[in-house]
Amino acid sequence: MESLKIPELVPSAAEDSQQLRKAFVGWGTDEACIIKILGHRNAAQRKLIRETYEATYEKDLLQDLDGEISGDFQRVVHLWTMAPAERDACLANEAIKHLPGSNCIIMEIACARSSVDLFKVRQNYQARYKKSLEEDVADHSTGDFRKLLVSLVTALRYEGEEVNMELASDEAKILHEKISDKAYSDEEFIRILSIRSKTQLNATFNQYNDKFGNAINKDLRANPKDQYLTLLRSAIKCLMEPEKYFEKVLRLAMKGFGTDEESLTRVVATRAEVDMELIKEKYYKRNSVTLESAISDDTSGDYEKMLLALIGHGNL
Amino acid sequence: MESLKIPELVPSAAEDSQQLRKAFVGWGTDEACIIKILGHRNAAQRKLIRETYEATYEKDLLQDLDGEISGDFQRVVHLWTMAPAERDACLANEAIKHLPGSNCIIMEIACARSSVDLFKVRQNYQARYKKSLEEDVADHSTGDFRKLLVSLVTALRYEGEEVNMELASDEAKILHEKISDKAYSDEEFIRILSIRSKTQLNATFNQYNDKFGNAINKDLRANPKDQYLTLLRSAIKCLMEPEKYFEKVLRLAMKGFGTDEESLTRVVATRAEVDMELIKEKYYKRNSVTLESAISDDTSGDYEKMLLALIGHGNL
Repeated sequence: MESLKIPELVPSAAEDSQQLRKAFVGWGTDEACIIKILGHRNAAQRKLIRETYEATYEKDLLQDLDGEISGDFQRVVHLWTMAPAERDACLANEAIKHLPGSNCIIMEIACARSSVDLFKVRQNYQARYKKSLEEDVADHSTGDFRKLLVSLVTALRYEGEEVNMELASDEAKILHEKISDKAYSDEEFIRILSIRSKTQLNATFNQYNDKFGNAINKDLRANPKDQYLTLLRSAIKCLMEPEKYFEKVLRLAMKGFGTDEESLTRVVATRAEVDMELIKEKYYKRNSVTLESAISDDTSGDYEKMLLALIGHGNL
Repeated sequence: MESLKIPELVPSAAEDSQQLRKAFVGWGTDEACIIKILGHRNAAQRKLIRETYEATYEKDLLQDLDGEISGDFQRVVHLWTMAPAERDACLANEAIKHLPGSNCIIMEIACARSSVDLFKVRQNYQARYKKSLEEDVADHSTGDFRKLLVSLVTALRYEGEEVNMELASDEAKILHEKISDKAYSDEEFIRILSIRSKTQLNATFNQYNDKFGNAINKDLRANPKDQYLTLLRSAIKCLMEPEKYFEKVLRLAMKGFGTDEESLTRVVATRAEVDMELIKEKYYKRNSVTLESAISDDTSGDYEKMLLALIGHGNL
């Protein structure tokens, strides 16, 4: 499901570090070399390269990269090179500073990661920012948003396949009652959403659809301008069909004139090693254009090359 | 701070397993041998003994123990022999079945463990019971209790020493406002209690005391029969001064006629490797009797011997 392409014979971390170092020193920077190496190594390999680079040159690879390259290219290389939990902690911290506009980034990290990965993000966040993720989220958000986001980020969902159909039916009824009462931030509503396993929630939403004739997200479209409802729908989508959620983020990022590079970079950097192949399929199905050509149309230069490498269309 | 005493020369796990096996087979059971070995091994050593026992005899040590011994002695040996996270998961699951009477056991596990230990309990709970701890707590509790307990069990508190004094002052005011309004289960009240680091909370409670003239727990004594307020005070005590909290549990367990063996066993088994030495000090200070002689007065036989071994008064 990942789009990342790794060469059959991967050079040692020592060779990779040496090549990167060469790309930095002297006149200019060899961007092609940065893409060739970092754009084609998985998380474990990148970790080893960073450690080897630091041990060999007594310098931080990320800092050296930041000194050599800039703009959108720098941002995607920097985010991508980080370990996933470290990257998410940074993205969350940036998002927290820009709340409420960036609610959906916190939600994404809480809903689209595995339980253990979310736990690692929370650990990483504490080590880095000397506070807990949930503290910072609570301190920078208010009202319904705060209730929902804090519950989502503290989740440690069970990931087994067991489903309790009776519970699904009962909770579908509760959700429907709350939606009928417009009690979208009711404690019970949020608890069901943040406590149940994704498999169980899926059964609950199916029951909802069967019993009440509409998909739950349709019933949550009462007021399209309501930001809280938008976040709620996104959370449900992100929990149930992350590839569809991310397809939409990419679609909106490249829609019309101009490009939302922030979102494009974030989705590519966070999903290339997870489910980018599925996202690409969804993208093509929805837009009748491949993600590759959409990115080529909307971006250029080394930024474009790095994005294409990460979605699996670069030269190995 | 732990009371557990380990011999200078610890036999190999193979020898320990062999001795335990010998203690089980043939006529009768050699209880003294069980105490001598298991009452004097730390968590890592017990883990290795269980693994070696299983590998050698193709039997589960815990099951064999359960087959050989019984009553309070069996309970303390069984609980103690388990790994801490596994033990807490079992205690939590038992407590969940007996809610609301056993609210305080869930609270203890949420408040008196380190962040990572609580996370391990949650992981262990899922592996064992195919649901998340917070799901089960939510499903078996109601109202204010549910709000408080679910928030406490999902916490991953920052454990650094940093304190934000301004925040402490602000939050002391919020807590005082809520208490004045008798809004003890207010969202904000519970959030502060379950989100902040213990160090930060300590500063907040000090500010509370300085600003408003009473310790917060004194102001929470409005109605001594209110079970929710009792749980709230216990949680604050357990977060701030776990050794005082556990001293009280032990005191009440052995007060007057009869003994609450459940509580006595639980506290000794869960604290012997953590802070039992501090608890013993507090106990002596509060009761003018050592914990050792209190236990000797209230219990007997192998149960007594095992408890004394775990609090550091057995023969090595």
